Amino acid sequence: MYRPEHFDEKDQEVIIRLMAEFPLATIVAQIKEGLVANHIPVLLEDDDRLIGHIAKANSLHQDLADGAEVLVIFRADDAYISPNYYPTKATDHRHVPTWNYQAVHCQGKIYFDHSVKTKTAIVGKLTKHFERLQFAEKAWRMADAPADYMAGMIDQIVAFRIQINQVLAKSKLSQNRAAVDYDKVTAKMADIGKTHLFDEMTRKKPKK
Amino acid sequence: MYRPEHFDEKDQEVIIRLMAEFPLATIVAQIKEGLVANHIPVLLEDDDRLIGHIAKANSLHQDLADGAEVLVIFRADDAYISPNYYPTKATDHRHVPTWNYQAVHCQGKIYFDHSVKTKTAIVGKLTKHFERLQFAEKAWRMADAPADYMAGMIDQIVAFRIQINQVLAKSKLSQNRAAVDYDKVTAKMADIGKTHLFDEMTRKKPKK
Repeated sequence: MYRPEHFDEKDQEVIIRLMAEFPLATIVAQIKEGLVANHIPVLLEDDDRLIGHIAKANSLHQDLADGAEVLVIFRADDAYISPNYYPTKATDHRHVPTWNYQAVHCQGKIYFDHSVKTKTAIVGKLTKHFERLQFAEKAWRMADAPADYMAGMIDQIVAFRIQINQVLAKSKLSQNRAAVDYDKVTAKMADIGKTHLFDEMTRKKPKK
Repeated sequence: MYRPEHFDEKDQEVIIRLMAEFPLATIVAQIKEGLVANHIPVLLEDDDRLIGHIAKANSLHQDLADGAEVLVIFRADDAYISPNYYPTKATDHRHVPTWNYQAVHCQGKIYFDHSVKTKTAIVGKLTKHFERLQFAEKAWRMADAPADYMAGMIDQIVAFRIQINQVLAKSKLSQNRAAVDYDKVTAKMADIGKTHLFDEMTRKKPKK
């Protein structure tokens, strides 16, 4: 991913937040037939491992050897940025349209696991995580479903872990703009309902 | 991309709408160093070609030979779907969490173009398109910027077209659910601010 210095995201806190807030990752791999991608919710564990599961009917676990390289892409909110947004446009007109967005790319090796024990553990972790985010103590628990039903569901999936060996991230958030333009673009993000971009730009506002 | 029958999106109208509403595509390629991805706004032309441009400083145009295979991924809105959303949960408890989303994958061959004429034409098309979507007759036009400034900006980019040879799409929108559950998940999307998913699920509501 092309990352000019001013858009290269190196803040670990930002990177981890993006992965947590946009967990439906795009897992890309090169297989015999070409490039393939699947959209799978994943969870970061111990800062260097992603866990998740795919349907057993998804041939990815057959197409990839153990330890195959995958690229895992997390994409946060994005927005078209018009030159009309910049107050300085009126004075110098030296602006062109662009796009603001944030992305995290994890390069890693994928390992599939067919054991009922690991599958149950991984499904349990993901369920607990996503349910608690939304419902706190009213979270749905795996134990709420009948055991025979859950066993059948577990049978239909394959668990995986991806051992991360490189993380690249980009925050393209108008950081290269004059302060007055930065502030106006930030405010505009709230106006057009891009609240995540508004929050990220507010946090990243360059210090005077 | 794994697409069970009920989630395989074949409706051309839906596919074209998703590409237009979520134009910041993820362009993936296999280069010598491994898998690489960039997030680039693109426009569909004549139903079989994507156009756009990258920074000249982005080595992608050097890393890929003319006609190299790329995978272009468009991802629409997504949401975690809790078993708590389903009214039938109370009666049979036979539900597990899932994720709803839509994605369009275009496989194609990329061709870069360094000519000022093509670059200017492509930048012009993208600008016109995105500005008109937002500002109608108040759109910013390239002619608003000084000619020397625009020439400098055009010099900093490389245009590309991607000739599409395969499109796969997926709409994972609870179509495999009981009508009462489908309706409740649809309503829930509006509650949690996922208006795009609400609109798509409303349009896709299975006929009685």
